[in-house]
Amino acid sequence: MTRAMHTTEEDSGIPRSSRPSPRDWNSELYLKFEAERTRAARDLLARIPYCETKLVYDLGCGPGNSTELLTRNFPGAEVVGVDKSNNMLSVARARVPTATFIRENIADWRPYAPADVIFANAALHFLPDHRKVMLALLDTLRPGGRLAVQMPVNTHEPSHAAMRMVAADGPWADRLLPVAKSITVLGQAGEYYDLFAPCCRHIDIWQTIYIHPLDGPEGVVEWFEGSGLRPFLDLLSAEESVDFLARYRDRLAQAYSRQPNGKVLLRYPRLFLVLQK
Amino acid sequence: MTRAMHTTEEDSGIPRSSRPSPRDWNSELYLKFEAERTRAARDLLARIPYCETKLVYDLGCGPGNSTELLTRNFPGAEVVGVDKSNNMLSVARARVPTATFIRENIADWRPYAPADVIFANAALHFLPDHRKVMLALLDTLRPGGRLAVQMPVNTHEPSHAAMRMVAADGPWADRLLPVAKSITVLGQAGEYYDLFAPCCRHIDIWQTIYIHPLDGPEGVVEWFEGSGLRPFLDLLSAEESVDFLARYRDRLAQAYSRQPNGKVLLRYPRLFLVLQK
Repeated sequence: MTRAMHTTEEDSGIPRSSRPSPRDWNSELYLKFEAERTRAARDLLARIPYCETKLVYDLGCGPGNSTELLTRNFPGAEVVGVDKSNNMLSVARARVPTATFIRENIADWRPYAPADVIFANAALHFLPDHRKVMLALLDTLRPGGRLAVQMPVNTHEPSHAAMRMVAADGPWADRLLPVAKSITVLGQAGEYYDLFAPCCRHIDIWQTIYIHPLDGPEGVVEWFEGSGLRPFLDLLSAEESVDFLARYRDRLAQAYSRQPNGKVLLRYPRLFLVLQK
Repeated sequence: MTRAMHTTEEDSGIPRSSRPSPRDWNSELYLKFEAERTRAARDLLARIPYCETKLVYDLGCGPGNSTELLTRNFPGAEVVGVDKSNNMLSVARARVPTATFIRENIADWRPYAPADVIFANAALHFLPDHRKVMLALLDTLRPGGRLAVQMPVNTHEPSHAAMRMVAADGPWADRLLPVAKSITVLGQAGEYYDLFAPCCRHIDIWQTIYIHPLDGPEGVVEWFEGSGLRPFLDLLSAEESVDFLARYRDRLAQAYSRQPNGKVLLRYPRLFLVLQK
Protein backbone atom coordinates (compact mmCIF):
# COMPACT_ATOMS: atom_id res chain seq x y z
CA MET A 1 0.00 0.00 0.00
CA THR A 2 2.80 2.33 -0.87
CA ARG A 3 2.37 3.00 -4.55
CA ALA A 4 0.86 6.49 -4.27
CA MET A 5 2.56 9.07 -6.44
CA HIS A 6 3.85 12.19 -4.87
CA THR A 7 2.02 14.63 -7.16
CA THR A 8 -0.93 16.25 -5.45
CA GLU A 9 -4.37 16.62 -6.98
CA GLU A 10 -3.67 20.34 -7.49
CA ASP A 11 -0.55 19.57 -9.53
CA SER A 12 -2.25 17.09 -11.80
CA GLY A 13 -4.74 19.49 -13.39
CA ILE A 14 -7.59 16.99 -12.94
CA PRO A 15 -10.79 18.66 -11.71
CA ARG A 16 -11.94 17.73 -8.24
CA SER A 17 -14.92 15.42 -8.22
CA SER A 18 -16.71 13.13 -5.82
CA ARG A 19 -14.73 10.18 -7.19
CA PRO A 20 -11.73 9.19 -5.11
CA SER A 21 -8.62 10.99 -6.26
CA PRO A 22 -6.56 8.70 -8.47
CA ARG A 23 -3.44 10.35 -7.06
CA ASP A 24 -3.43 8.78 -3.61
CA TRP A 25 -4.62 5.63 -1.92
CA ASN A 26 -8.20 5.87 -0.76
CA SER A 27 -8.61 4.74 2.83
CA GLU A 28 -12.40 4.56 2.56
CA LEU A 29 -12.32 2.11 -0.34
CA TYR A 30 -9.53 0.14 1.30
CA LEU A 31 -11.51 -0.17 4.51
CA LYS A 32 -14.68 -1.33 2.76
CA PHE A 33 -13.20 -4.82 3.12
CA GLU A 34 -11.51 -4.10 6.43
CA ALA A 35 -12.47 -7.36 8.13
CA GLU A 36 -11.11 -9.45 5.25
CA ARG A 37 -7.91 -7.43 4.85
CA THR A 38 -7.22 -7.30 8.58
CA ARG A 39 -7.73 -11.05 8.82
CA ALA A 40 -4.49 -11.65 6.93
CA ALA A 41 -2.66 -9.27 9.30
CA ARG A 42 -4.18 -11.09 12.26
CA ASP A 43 -3.11 -14.49 10.88
CA LEU A 44 0.42 -13.18 10.36
CA LEU A 45 0.59 -11.71 13.85
CA ALA A 46 -0.65 -14.98 15.39
CA ARG A 47 2.59 -16.65 14.27
CA ILE A 48 4.89 -14.23 16.08
CA PRO A 49 5.57 -15.92 19.44
CA TYR A 50 5.18 -13.84 22.57
CA CYS A 51 8.43 -12.16 23.55
CA GLU A 52 9.60 -8.98 25.22
CA THR A 53 9.24 -6.35 22.54
CA LYS A 54 10.40 -2.74 22.66
CA LEU A 55 10.29 -1.55 19.06
CA VAL A 56 7.91 -2.60 16.26
CA TYR A 57 7.71 -1.21 12.72
CA ASP A 58 4.58 -1.58 10.59
CA LEU A 59 5.71 -1.10 7.00
CA GLY A 60 3.05 0.03 4.53
CA CYS A 61 0.75 0.56 7.49
CA GLY A 62 -2.07 2.02 5.38
CA PRO A 63 -5.06 3.26 7.42
CA GLY A 64 -3.66 1.77 10.63
CA ASN A 65 -5.73 -1.41 10.89
CA SER A 66 -2.59 -3.53 11.22
CA THR A 67 -0.91 -0.91 13.44
CA GLU A 68 -3.84 -1.10 15.83
CA LEU A 69 -3.44 -4.88 16.06
CA LEU A 70 0.28 -4.44 16.80
CA THR A 71 -0.25 -1.89 19.60
CA ARG A 72 -2.74 -4.27 21.24
CA ASN A 73 -0.44 -7.27 20.86
CA PHE A 74 2.71 -5.47 22.09
CA PRO A 75 1.29 -3.10 24.73
CA GLY A 76 4.66 -2.00 26.13
CA ALA A 77 6.38 -1.42 22.79
CA GLU A 78 6.91 1.65 20.66
CA VAL A 79 4.99 0.98 17.44
CA VAL A 80 5.93 2.98 14.34
CA GLY A 81 3.77 2.94 11.21
CA VAL A 82 5.46 3.77 7.91
CA ASP A 83 3.58 4.65 4.73
CA LYS A 84 3.92 6.87 1.66
CA SER A 85 0.27 7.94 1.42
CA ASN A 86 -0.86 11.09 3.19
CA ASN A 87 -4.48 9.99 3.01
CA MET A 88 -3.71 6.67 4.68
CA LEU A 89 -1.46 8.26 7.31
CA SER A 90 -4.06 10.83 8.36
CA VAL A 91 -6.61 8.05 8.92
CA ALA A 92 -4.03 5.93 10.74
CA ARG A 93 -3.02 8.78 13.09
CA ALA A 94 -6.61 9.37 14.11
CA ARG A 95 -7.22 5.66 14.59
CA VAL A 96 -4.12 4.74 16.62
CA PRO A 97 -3.06 7.78 18.67
CA THR A 98 -0.60 5.71 20.73
CA ALA A 99 1.51 4.83 17.68
CA THR A 100 3.98 7.01 15.80
CA PHE A 101 3.53 7.44 12.05
CA ILE A 102 6.10 8.57 9.53
CA ARG A 103 5.79 9.27 5.81
CA GLU A 104 8.47 7.35 3.99
CA ASN A 105 8.84 5.18 0.90
CA ILE A 106 9.53 1.70 2.27
CA ALA A 107 11.39 0.78 -0.93
CA ASP A 108 14.52 2.48 0.35
CA TRP A 109 13.80 3.53 3.94
CA ARG A 110 15.48 1.58 6.73
CA PRO A 111 14.67 1.45 10.47
CA TYR A 112 16.38 4.01 12.72
CA ALA A 113 17.13 1.40 15.38
CA PRO A 114 17.29 -2.41 15.60
CA ALA A 115 13.68 -3.57 15.95
CA ASP A 116 12.20 -6.60 17.67
CA VAL A 117 9.51 -6.96 15.01
CA ILE A 118 9.22 -5.60 11.48
CA PHE A 119 5.72 -6.25 10.20
CA ALA A 120 4.74 -5.82 6.55
CA ASN A 121 1.19 -6.85 5.67
CA ALA A 122 0.41 -6.67 1.92
CA ALA A 123 3.09 -4.06 1.31
CA LEU A 124 6.40 -5.48 0.07
CA HIS A 125 5.03 -7.05 -3.13
CA PHE A 126 4.56 -3.55 -4.54
CA LEU A 127 8.34 -3.02 -4.46
CA PRO A 128 10.53 -3.73 -7.50
CA ASP A 129 12.68 -6.19 -5.52
CA HIS A 130 11.01 -7.43 -2.34
CA ARG A 131 13.67 -10.13 -1.82
CA LYS A 132 16.48 -7.57 -1.58
CA VAL A 133 14.40 -5.36 0.71
CA MET A 134 13.61 -8.30 2.99
CA LEU A 135 17.27 -9.27 3.28
CA ALA A 136 18.17 -5.65 4.09
CA LEU A 137 15.40 -5.42 6.71
CA LEU A 138 16.47 -8.72 8.31
CA ASP A 139 19.95 -7.28 8.62
CA THR A 140 18.64 -4.33 10.66
CA LEU A 141 16.79 -6.49 13.23
CA ARG A 142 18.16 -7.07 16.69
CA PRO A 143 19.40 -10.67 17.09
CA GLY A 144 16.34 -12.87 17.69
CA GLY A 145 14.05 -10.26 16.16
CA ARG A 146 11.44 -11.16 13.55
CA LEU A 147 10.51 -10.00 10.08
CA ALA A 148 6.85 -10.89 9.43
CA VAL A 149 5.65 -10.52 5.86
CA GLN A 150 2.40 -11.23 4.05
CA MET A 151 2.13 -10.76 0.28
CA PRO A 152 -0.79 -11.47 -2.08
CA VAL A 153 -0.05 -14.19 -4.64
CA ASN A 154 -2.81 -13.33 -7.08
CA THR A 155 -0.86 -12.50 -10.24
CA HIS A 156 -2.25 -15.60 -11.93
CA GLU A 157 -5.78 -15.30 -10.53
CA PRO A 158 -8.61 -14.33 -12.94
CA SER A 159 -8.92 -10.98 -11.13
CA HIS A 160 -5.40 -10.01 -12.16
CA ALA A 161 -5.44 -11.56 -15.61
CA ALA A 162 -8.51 -9.38 -16.29
CA MET A 163 -6.72 -6.32 -14.91
CA ARG A 164 -3.79 -6.80 -17.30
CA MET A 165 -6.09 -7.43 -20.29
CA VAL A 166 -8.02 -4.20 -19.69
CA ALA A 167 -4.73 -2.34 -19.30
CA ALA A 168 -3.40 -3.76 -22.58
CA ASP A 169 -6.59 -3.32 -24.59
CA GLY A 170 -7.60 0.33 -24.34
CA PRO A 171 -6.64 3.91 -25.21
CA TRP A 172 -4.34 3.89 -22.16
CA ALA A 173 -2.28 0.87 -23.29
CA ASP A 174 0.93 2.88 -23.80
CA ARG A 175 0.79 4.11 -20.22
CA LEU A 176 -0.53 0.98 -18.51
CA LEU A 177 1.34 -1.84 -20.24
CA PRO A 178 4.61 -1.02 -18.45
CA VAL A 179 2.69 -1.18 -15.14
CA ALA A 180 1.14 -4.52 -16.11
CA LYS A 181 4.56 -5.89 -17.00
CA SER A 182 6.13 -4.65 -13.77
CA ILE A 183 3.70 -6.47 -11.46
CA THR A 184 5.64 -8.70 -9.09
CA VAL A 185 5.40 -12.44 -9.59
CA LEU A 186 6.19 -14.07 -6.26
CA GLY A 187 8.46 -17.11 -6.02
CA GLN A 188 7.62 -20.56 -4.68
CA ALA A 189 7.89 -21.18 -0.94
CA GLY A 190 11.06 -23.24 -1.42
CA GLU A 191 12.79 -20.34 -3.13
CA TYR A 192 12.21 -18.08 -0.12
CA TYR A 193 13.22 -20.87 2.23
CA ASP A 194 16.57 -21.25 0.45
CA LEU A 195 17.11 -17.49 0.30
CA PHE A 196 16.53 -16.89 4.01
CA ALA A 197 17.76 -20.17 5.59
CA PRO A 198 21.42 -19.08 5.72
CA CYS A 199 20.65 -15.92 7.72
CA CYS A 200 17.71 -17.02 9.91
CA ARG A 201 17.54 -19.15 13.03
CA HIS A 202 13.91 -20.02 12.30
CA ILE A 203 11.75 -19.81 9.20
CA ASP A 204 7.98 -20.20 9.07
CA ILE A 205 6.41 -20.15 5.60
CA TRP A 206 2.83 -20.89 4.63
CA GLN A 207 0.26 -19.88 2.07
CA THR A 208 -3.42 -19.32 2.72
CA ILE A 209 -6.10 -19.12 0.06
CA TYR A 210 -9.01 -17.15 1.47
CA ILE A 211 -12.41 -17.59 -0.16
CA HIS A 212 -14.34 -14.30 0.02
CA PRO A 213 -18.02 -14.39 -0.98
CA LEU A 214 -18.72 -11.00 -2.61
CA ASP A 215 -21.85 -9.38 -4.04
CA GLY A 216 -21.19 -10.03 -7.72
CA PRO A 217 -18.40 -8.74 -10.00
CA GLU A 218 -18.93 -5.23 -8.58
CA GLY A 219 -17.62 -6.49 -5.28
CA VAL A 220 -14.41 -7.68 -6.93
CA VAL A 221 -14.02 -4.28 -8.64
CA GLU A 222 -14.43 -2.48 -5.34
CA TRP A 223 -11.98 -4.81 -3.62
CA PHE A 224 -9.16 -4.11 -6.06
CA GLU A 225 -10.07 -0.46 -6.55
CA GLY A 226 -8.85 -0.14 -2.97
CA SER A 227 -5.59 -2.05 -3.54
CA GLY A 228 -4.31 -3.91 -6.63
CA LEU A 229 -5.75 -1.48 -9.19
CA ARG A 230 -4.00 1.53 -7.63
CA PRO A 231 -0.88 1.36 -9.85
CA PHE A 232 -3.14 1.48 -12.93
CA LEU A 233 -5.62 4.08 -11.70
CA ASP A 234 -2.76 6.31 -10.58
CA LEU A 235 -1.98 6.93 -14.26
CA LEU A 236 -5.53 7.58 -15.48
CA SER A 237 -7.72 10.67 -15.47
CA ALA A 238 -11.00 10.51 -13.55
CA GLU A 239 -12.93 9.88 -16.79
CA GLU A 240 -10.54 7.19 -17.91
CA SER A 241 -10.81 5.51 -14.52
CA VAL A 242 -14.58 5.23 -14.90
CA ASP A 243 -14.14 3.64 -18.33
CA PHE A 244 -11.37 1.32 -17.09
CA LEU A 245 -13.46 0.11 -14.15
CA ALA A 246 -16.50 -0.55 -16.36
CA ARG A 247 -14.43 -2.67 -18.73
CA TYR A 248 -12.83 -4.44 -15.78
CA ARG A 249 -16.24 -5.23 -14.35
CA ASP A 250 -17.37 -6.76 -17.66
CA ARG A 251 -14.32 -9.01 -17.82
CA LEU A 252 -14.82 -10.10 -14.22
CA ALA A 253 -18.45 -10.98 -14.96
CA GLN A 254 -17.15 -13.45 -17.54
CA ALA A 255 -14.37 -14.83 -15.34
CA TYR A 256 -16.32 -15.26 -12.09
CA SER A 257 -19.53 -17.22 -12.43
CA ARG A 258 -22.17 -16.62 -9.77
CA GLN A 259 -22.89 -19.33 -7.22
CA PRO A 260 -26.53 -20.48 -6.97
CA ASN A 261 -27.13 -17.93 -4.17
CA GLY A 262 -25.94 -15.06 -6.36
CA LYS A 263 -22.56 -14.55 -4.68
CA VAL A 264 -19.21 -14.48 -6.44
CA LEU A 265 -16.35 -16.30 -4.67
CA LEU A 266 -13.09 -14.35 -4.77
CA ARG A 267 -10.22 -16.82 -4.31
CA TYR A 268 -7.42 -14.86 -2.69
CA PRO A 269 -4.04 -16.58 -2.13
CA ARG A 270 -1.54 -14.94 0.23
CA LEU A 271 2.02 -15.96 1.12
CA PHE A 272 3.22 -15.59 4.73
CA LEU A 273 6.78 -15.56 6.05
CA VAL A 274 7.90 -15.15 9.65
CA LEU A 275 11.69 -14.99 9.71
CA GLN A 276 13.65 -14.96 12.93
CA LYS A 277 17.14 -13.48 12.73
CA MET B 1 -7.91 -40.60 12.86
CA THR B 2 -10.67 -43.19 13.00
CA ARG B 3 -9.55 -45.90 10.66
CA ALA B 4 -8.24 -48.34 13.26
CA MET B 5 -9.59 -51.84 12.90
CA HIS B 6 -11.29 -53.49 15.82
CA THR B 7 -9.20 -56.68 15.82
CA THR B 8 -6.73 -56.77 18.67
CA GLU B 9 -3.07 -57.73 18.32
CA GLU B 10 -3.83 -61.00 20.12
CA ASP B 11 -6.52 -61.92 17.60
CA SER B 12 -4.36 -61.23 14.60
CA GLY B 13 -1.73 -63.86 15.29
CA ILE B 14 1.07 -61.39 14.60
CA PRO B 15 3.91 -61.71 17.13
CA ARG B 16 4.46 -58.75 19.44
CA SER B 17 7.51 -56.72 18.57
CA SER B 18 8.99 -53.35 19.37
CA ARG B 19 7.43 -51.95 16.19
CA PRO B 20 4.14 -50.12 16.69
CA SER B 21 1.21 -52.47 16.30
CA PRO B 22 -0.28 -52.11 12.84
CA ARG B 23 -3.70 -52.80 14.33
CA ASP B 24 -4.33 -49.47 16.04
CA TRP B 25 -3.33 -45.85 15.68
CA ASN B 26 -0.05 -45.08 17.37
CA SER B 27 -0.23 -42.00 19.55
CA GLU B 28 3.55 -41.79 19.94
CA LEU B 29 4.16 -41.59 16.19
CA TYR B 30 1.26 -39.22 15.76
CA LEU B 31 2.62 -36.89 18.43
CA LYS B 32 6.12 -36.84 16.95
CA PHE B 33 4.84 -33.93 14.86
CA GLU B 34 2.53 -32.64 17.55
CA ALA B 35 3.38 -28.96 17.08
CA GLU B 36 2.69 -29.12 13.35
CA ARG B 37 -0.48 -31.16 13.66
CA THR B 38 -1.85 -29.06 16.50
CA ARG B 39 -1.16 -25.89 14.53
CA ALA B 40 -3.95 -26.76 12.12
CA ALA B 41 -6.33 -27.34 15.05
CA ARG B 42 -5.27 -24.00 16.53
CA ASP B 43 -5.85 -22.21 13.21
CA LEU B 44 -9.30 -23.78 12.95
CA LEU B 45 -10.20 -22.85 16.52
CA ALA B 46 -9.06 -19.25 15.96
CA ARG B 47 -11.93 -18.79 13.50
CA ILE B 48 -14.66 -19.77 15.95
CA PRO B 49 -15.83 -16.45 17.40
CA TYR B 50 -16.14 -16.17 21.15
CA CYS B 51 -19.61 -17.12 22.34
CA GLU B 52 -21.28 -18.72 25.35
CA THR B 53 -20.61 -22.41 24.91
CA LYS B 54 -22.01 -25.27 26.97
CA LEU B 55 -21.30 -28.38 24.91
CA VAL B 56 -18.39 -29.09 22.56
CA TYR B 57 -17.64 -32.32 20.67
CA ASP B 58 -14.17 -33.13 19.37
CA LEU B 59 -14.64 -35.75 16.66
CA GLY B 60 -11.65 -37.97 15.90
CA CYS B 61 -9.98 -36.46 18.95
CA GLY B 62 -6.91 -38.71 18.70
CA PRO B 63 -4.43 -38.28 21.58
CA GLY B 64 -6.30 -35.24 22.92
CA ASN B 65 -4.11 -32.44 21.59
CA SER B 66 -7.12 -30.75 19.99
CA THR B 67 -9.34 -31.60 22.98
CA GLU B 68 -6.88 -29.83 25.27
CA LEU B 69 -7.07 -26.70 23.09
CA LEU B 70 -10.87 -26.85 23.25
CA THR B 71 -11.03 -27.14 27.05
CA ARG B 72 -8.76 -24.09 27.34
CA ASN B 73 -10.74 -22.09 24.82
CA PHE B 74 -14.17 -22.96 26.28
CA PRO B 75 -13.41 -23.17 30.01
CA GLY B 76 -17.04 -23.42 31.16
CA ALA B 77 -18.15 -25.98 28.60
CA GLU B 78 -18.49 -29.75 28.70
CA VAL B 79 -15.98 -31.04 26.16
CA VAL B 80 -16.46 -34.55 24.78
CA GLY B 81 -13.77 -36.28 22.71
CA VAL B 82 -14.88 -39.05 20.35
CA ASP B 83 -12.52 -41.56 18.75
CA LYS B 84 -12.43 -45.19 17.66
CA SER B 85 -8.87 -45.95 18.76
CA ASN B 86 -8.27 -47.33 22.26
CA ASN B 87 -4.62 -46.33 22.11
CA MET B 88 -5.46 -42.75 21.26
CA LEU B 89 -8.25 -42.56 23.86
CA SER B 90 -6.05 -43.80 26.70
CA VAL B 91 -3.48 -41.10 25.92
CA ALA B 92 -6.21 -38.47 25.59
CA ARG B 93 -7.82 -39.38 28.94
CA ALA B 94 -4.50 -39.01 30.74
CA ARG B 95 -3.77 -35.73 29.00
CA VAL B 96 -7.12 -33.98 29.45
CA PRO B 97 -8.75 -35.21 32.66
CA THR B 98 -11.40 -32.48 32.58
CA ALA B 99 -12.84 -33.74 29.29
CA THR B 100 -15.06 -36.77 28.70
CA PHE B 101 -13.98 -39.35 26.13
CA ILE B 102 -16.10 -41.91 24.37
CA ARG B 103 -15.16 -44.70 21.97
CA GLU B 104 -17.35 -44.43 18.90
CA ASN B 105 -17.01 -44.60 15.13
CA ILE B 106 -17.73 -41.07 13.98
CA ALA B 107 -18.91 -42.35 10.61
CA ASP B 108 -22.32 -43.14 12.04
CA TRP B 109 -22.32 -41.78 15.60
CA ARG B 110 -24.35 -38.62 16.27
CA PRO B 111 -24.23 -36.21 19.26
CA TYR B 112 -26.47 -37.00 22.22
CA ALA B 113 -27.55 -33.37 22.59
CA PRO B 114 -27.49 -30.22 20.43
CA ALA B 115 -23.93 -28.87 20.65
CA ASP B 116 -22.61 -25.32 20.43
CA VAL B 117 -19.46 -26.48 18.65
CA ILE B 118 -18.62 -29.67 16.78
CA PHE B 119 -14.92 -29.71 16.04
CA ALA B 120 -13.30 -32.20 13.63
CA ASN B 121 -9.60 -31.71 12.99
CA ALA B 122 -8.17 -34.05 10.34
CA ALA B 123 -10.84 -36.67 10.93
CA LEU B 124 -13.79 -36.49 8.52
CA HIS B 125 -11.76 -37.06 5.34
CA PHE B 126 -11.28 -40.70 6.46
CA LEU B 127 -15.02 -41.31 6.13
CA PRO B 128 -16.57 -42.71 2.95
CA ASP B 129 -18.90 -39.70 2.59
CA HIS B 130 -17.75 -36.70 4.62
CA ARG B 131 -20.28 -34.39 2.92
CA LYS B 132 -23.24 -36.43 4.11
CA VAL B 133 -21.76 -36.68 7.63
CA MET B 134 -21.21 -32.91 7.76
CA LEU B 135 -24.79 -32.20 6.72
CA ALA B 136 -26.05 -34.64 9.38
CA LEU B 137 -23.82 -33.07 12.06
CA LEU B 138 -24.94 -29.55 11.11
CA ASP B 139 -28.50 -30.70 11.58
CA THR B 140 -27.80 -31.75 15.17
CA LEU B 141 -26.28 -28.37 16.22
CA ARG B 142 -28.23 -25.91 18.30
CA PRO B 143 -29.31 -22.88 16.22
CA GLY B 144 -26.29 -20.57 15.94
CA GLY B 145 -23.90 -23.42 16.73
CA ARG B 146 -20.83 -24.12 14.62
CA LEU B 147 -19.34 -27.09 12.82
CA ALA B 148 -15.59 -26.55 12.43
CA VAL B 149 -13.77 -28.93 10.11
CA GLN B 150 -10.21 -29.28 8.87
CA MET B 151 -9.28 -31.89 6.27
CA PRO B 152 -5.95 -32.57 4.55
CA VAL B 153 -6.03 -31.99 0.79
CA ASN B 154 -2.93 -33.97 -0.08
CA THR B 155 -4.31 -36.67 -2.38
CA HIS B 156 -2.46 -35.11 -5.31
CA GLU B 157 0.74 -34.31 -3.40
CA PRO B 158 3.90 -36.37 -4.15
CA SER B 159 3.66 -37.91 -0.67
CA HIS B 160 0.33 -39.52 -1.54
CA ALA B 161 1.10 -40.37 -5.15
CA ALA B 162 4.11 -42.33 -3.80
CA MET B 163 1.90 -44.05 -1.21
CA ARG B 164 -0.49 -45.28 -3.89
CA MET B 165 2.33 -46.43 -6.16
CA VAL B 166 3.93 -48.51 -3.41
CA ALA B 167 0.52 -49.98 -2.59
CA ALA B 168 -0.11 -50.92 -6.24
CA ASP B 169 3.37 -52.26 -6.96
CA GLY B 170 4.11 -54.96 -4.38
CA PRO B 171 3.09 -58.39 -3.09
CA TRP B 172 0.27 -56.69 -1.16
CA ALA B 173 -1.35 -55.10 -4.21
CA ASP B 174 -4.53 -57.19 -3.99
CA ARG B 175 -5.12 -56.04 -0.46
CA LEU B 176 -3.97 -52.43 -0.76
CA LEU B 177 -5.30 -51.33 -4.14
CA PRO B 178 -8.88 -51.10 -2.85
CA VAL B 179 -7.59 -48.87 -0.03
CA ALA B 180 -5.68 -46.68 -2.52
CA LYS B 181 -8.80 -46.34 -4.65
CA SER B 182 -11.02 -45.49 -1.69
CA ILE B 183 -8.95 -42.49 -0.54
CA THR B 184 -11.15 -39.42 -0.39
CA VAL B 185 -10.58 -36.72 -2.99
CA LEU B 186 -11.86 -33.46 -1.53
CA GLY B 187 -13.95 -31.04 -3.58
CA GLN B 188 -13.18 -27.45 -4.49
CA ALA B 189 -14.06 -24.72 -2.01
CA GLY B 190 -16.97 -23.56 -4.21
CA GLU B 191 -18.54 -27.00 -4.11
CA TYR B 192 -18.65 -26.97 -0.29
CA TYR B 193 -19.91 -23.38 -0.33
CA ASP B 194 -22.84 -24.34 -2.55
CA LEU B 195 -23.59 -27.47 -0.51
CA PHE B 196 -23.72 -25.66 2.83
CA ALA B 197 -25.00 -22.19 1.86
CA PRO B 198 -28.69 -23.21 1.95
CA CYS B 199 -28.48 -24.46 5.55
CA CYS B 200 -25.95 -22.06 7.13
CA ARG B 201 -26.20 -18.49 8.31
CA HIS B 202 -22.47 -18.00 7.88
CA ILE B 203 -19.79 -19.91 5.97
CA ASP B 204 -16.04 -19.43 6.34
CA ILE B 205 -13.87 -21.48 3.95
CA TRP B 206 -10.13 -21.26 3.42
CA GLN B 207 -7.20 -23.45 2.51
CA THR B 208 -3.74 -23.27 4.03
CA ILE B 209 -0.64 -24.86 2.57
CA TYR B 210 1.83 -25.41 5.39
CA ILE B 211 5.49 -25.82 4.50
CA HIS B 212 7.14 -28.22 6.97
CA PRO B 213 10.95 -28.52 6.81
CA LEU B 214 11.72 -32.16 7.70
CA ASP B 215 14.96 -34.11 8.14
CA GLY B 216 15.02 -35.85 4.77
CA PRO B 217 12.61 -38.42 3.28
CA GLU B 218 12.66 -40.34 6.59
CA GLY B 219 10.85 -37.39 8.14
CA VAL B 220 8.06 -37.66 5.56
CA VAL B 221 7.77 -41.42 6.20
CA GLU B 222 7.47 -40.83 9.95
CA TRP B 223 4.89 -38.09 9.42
CA PHE B 224 2.53 -40.31 7.44
CA GLU B 225 3.28 -43.46 9.42
CA GLY B 226 1.41 -41.60 12.17
CA SER B 227 -1.58 -40.67 10.00
CA GLY B 228 -2.15 -41.13 6.24
CA LEU B 229 -0.41 -44.52 5.97
CA ARG B 230 -2.60 -46.09 8.66
CA PRO B 231 -5.25 -47.50 6.28
CA PHE B 232 -2.47 -49.29 4.37
CA LEU B 233 -0.41 -50.46 7.35
CA ASP B 234 -3.56 -51.76 9.03
CA LEU B 235 -3.69 -54.50 6.39
CA LEU B 236 -0.02 -55.53 6.49
CA SER B 237 1.95 -57.86 8.74
CA ALA B 238 4.82 -56.39 10.74
CA GLU B 239 7.35 -57.71 8.20
CA GLU B 240 5.36 -56.37 5.27
CA SER B 241 5.11 -52.98 6.97
CA VAL B 242 8.90 -52.75 7.18
CA ASP B 243 9.19 -53.56 3.48
CA PHE B 244 6.38 -51.14 2.55
CA LEU B 245 7.96 -48.28 4.48
CA ALA B 246 11.39 -48.91 2.92
CA ARG B 247 9.94 -48.77 -0.58
CA TYR B 248 7.93 -45.68 0.36
CA ARG B 249 11.08 -43.97 1.63
CA ASP B 250 12.87 -44.67 -1.68
CA ARG B 251 10.06 -43.17 -3.71
CA LEU B 252 9.95 -40.10 -1.47
CA ALA B 253 13.71 -39.63 -1.92
CA GLN B 254 13.05 -39.27 -5.65
CA ALA B 255 10.01 -37.04 -5.28
CA TYR B 256 11.34 -34.61 -2.65
CA SER B 257 14.69 -33.06 -3.51
CA ARG B 258 16.75 -31.79 -0.61
CA GLN B 259 17.16 -28.04 -0.12
CA PRO B 260 20.75 -26.75 0.03
CA ASN B 261 20.67 -27.04 3.84
CA GLY B 262 19.73 -30.73 3.65
CA LYS B 263 16.08 -30.35 4.66
CA VAL B 264 13.12 -31.65 2.71
CA LEU B 265 10.10 -29.34 2.48
CA LEU B 266 6.80 -31.14 2.97
CA ARG B 267 4.06 -29.08 1.32
CA TYR B 268 0.90 -29.84 3.26
CA PRO B 269 -2.41 -28.33 2.04
CA ARG B 270 -5.40 -28.37 4.38
CA LEU B 271 -9.00 -27.25 3.81
CA PHE B 272 -10.86 -25.46 6.62
CA LEU B 273 -14.59 -24.89 7.01
CA VAL B 274 -16.39 -23.10 9.85
CA LEU B 275 -20.13 -23.43 9.29
CA GLN B 276 -22.64 -21.63 11.46
CA LYS B 277 -26.11 -23.14 11.55
